Amino acid sequence: MPRVTDPDELFAAARTGDRGALARLLSYVERGGEQARRVGRLAYPLSGNAYTVGLTGAPGAGKSTLTSALIGHLRSLAIEVAVLAIDPSSPFTGGAILGDRVRMQDHATDPGVFIRSMATRGHLGGLSLATPEAVRLLDAIGREWVMVETVGVGQVEVEVAGKADTTVVVVNPGWGDSVQANKAGLMEIADVFVINKADRKGVDETRRDLEQMLELTDLPHDAWRPPIVATIASSSQGVDDLWDAVLAHRAHAESSGQLAERRSFRAGEELREIVTNRLRERARTICTGERWDQLTGEVVDQTTDPWTAADEMLAGVDA
Amino acid sequence: MPRVTDPDELFAAARTGDRGALARLLSYVERGGEQARRVGRLAYPLSGNAYTVGLTGAPGAGKSTLTSALIGHLRSLAIEVAVLAIDPSSPFTGGAILGDRVRMQDHATDPGVFIRSMATRGHLGGLSLATPEAVRLLDAIGREWVMVETVGVGQVEVEVAGKADTTVVVVNPGWGDSVQANKAGLMEIADVFVINKADRKGVDETRRDLEQMLELTDLPHDAWRPPIVATIASSSQGVDDLWDAVLAHRAHAESSGQLAERRSFRAGEELREIVTNRLRERARTICTGERWDQLTGEVVDQTTDPWTAADEMLAGVDA
Repeated sequence: MPRVTDPDELFAAARTGDRGALARLLSYVERGGEQARRVGRLAYPLSGNAYTVGLTGAPGAGKSTLTSALIGHLRSLAIEVAVLAIDPSSPFTGGAILGDRVRMQDHATDPGVFIRSMATRGHLGGLSLATPEAVRLLDAIGREWVMVETVGVGQVEVEVAGKADTTVVVVNPGWGDSVQANKAGLMEIADVFVINKADRKGVDETRRDLEQMLELTDLPHDAWRPPIVATIASSSQGVDDLWDAVLAHRAHAESSGQLAERRSFRAGEELREIVTNRLRERARTICTGERWDQLTGEVVDQTTDPWTAADEMLAGVDA
Repeated sequence: MPRVTDPDELFAAARTGDRGALARLLSYVERGGEQARRVGRLAYPLSGNAYTVGLTGAPGAGKSTLTSALIGHLRSLAIEVAVLAIDPSSPFTGGAILGDRVRMQDHATDPGVFIRSMATRGHLGGLSLATPEAVRLLDAIGREWVMVETVGVGQVEVEVAGKADTTVVVVNPGWGDSVQANKAGLMEIADVFVINKADRKGVDETRRDLEQMLELTDLPHDAWRPPIVATIASSSQGVDDLWDAVLAHRAHAESSGQLAERRSFRAGEELREIVTNRLRERARTICTGERWDQLTGEVVDQTTDPWTAADEMLAGVDA
């Protein structure tokens, strides 16, 4: 039997539950380009029903163990879930080491769970374009909950985590002393805080630290105040509380209009990103040829500076 | 006395050793825009003499302690050095915690050392444009060695680390089992490997792992084979060996033509990045106005998809 490569056929198969077809479509999304665009156009009209939960935090905070425990909790409630792991430090993305460090074996054969690691080599727009496209695809094939796990360091990674409907930031006791994460960035995007590894000492101090930081943040009058949940992911303790906090934020976001506002804002952001990316493709066309090679040489020889060279390359371009 | 804000005056002052002026110029670079471009045009003709050393690795690998120990070693050799810390997990970038975790106090009053943390909020091109601009400025004011420390996770951060003349990748014993870094990405950019915290067990296994990974990498015939150096940064052990490895790579890169090749490649990359960034600014101009708001609304309502909307916004743009 020939291997199906046509996006339309694969999409139809994925909609009926074919996981192999879904995996292939996600590979197209990762690689970007024309095929990714076709997948996008197929998925778009059928999307809009999934709710996304971002999960981020410093490396070592226990994000993957927590994700795994949360999957377990959702399955006990008969909720289906898809997980995109775009954290280079995640065991989910480690291929060979899958299941070594977390109990992913529990979920590996469960048809109600779909886990996929994201690599974006080749996608010109990088994670910031590939992630919403992958989420949209999972949404379109009928997943109602999509979790996106990213590491809480890195310019792009923190941005991606902040683009979920509800963003969960995972910290550990003693976080106040630690410098292993982009704290200011994480404070800004958190809808729910988790103090994971709560069997270690320092939980109360960490809670106080977070509360103080929240006090200092200038929240709008009717704004959501991120709750702080303590968990011990390795034994699933507190994971039910975490889920309740996610549901509470969802209810608030839906009733307050925040969800609609955020999605509208994100749509604008993505559209701008797509426009930028198209222009970037044009830049690749511009940045080639004899004059380009010449200008690059002049920049290296310091007979011209890069800004002047860029001005010249762009002079003929009307935009 | 009025505060000097003119880039030309500040640049002249920085060239005579005024650290306050240099700090202000670096703030311009961080913020991007017209002032950053002026700084760039001033620095460009005077640059090209500095040698850059990138230092990266997983959070917690001991990059900052190693950087600090390396500074100490360089100072003992009467070598001046500038350090850009663009690692959100670095104590250097922690402001209040400066000196708490590493012995930066040793260097704080040394005029032969300049340390600066980089933030890039506001710079549209982000770290990938701000970092080479900052390096060029330090180069232009006469620093012969510039070290760039970044965390080895994050799409942009690993790219930035790989753009040094010599890139040092820091790992720890037991790295083989750990999943706290973008391993494949780090393998690709390493010119020198450091196994730091070499007083822990597993150094030999880690060395073997790295050697095996290098075997599997398809090196060109006359290519540099990254040496593997063991260090205990907290007591400065092996730091002299690390420095010797950096010097050996520099000698190879200079004599083989690799350095010239890399710099030429980087110049092309930067030029392309500048062109892209200019186009991104144009995108911001395009992505505004009545039709834009309308299209964003249609995307949200799913009456049109983002790619079709982007096509329409770009239809009038020739490039």
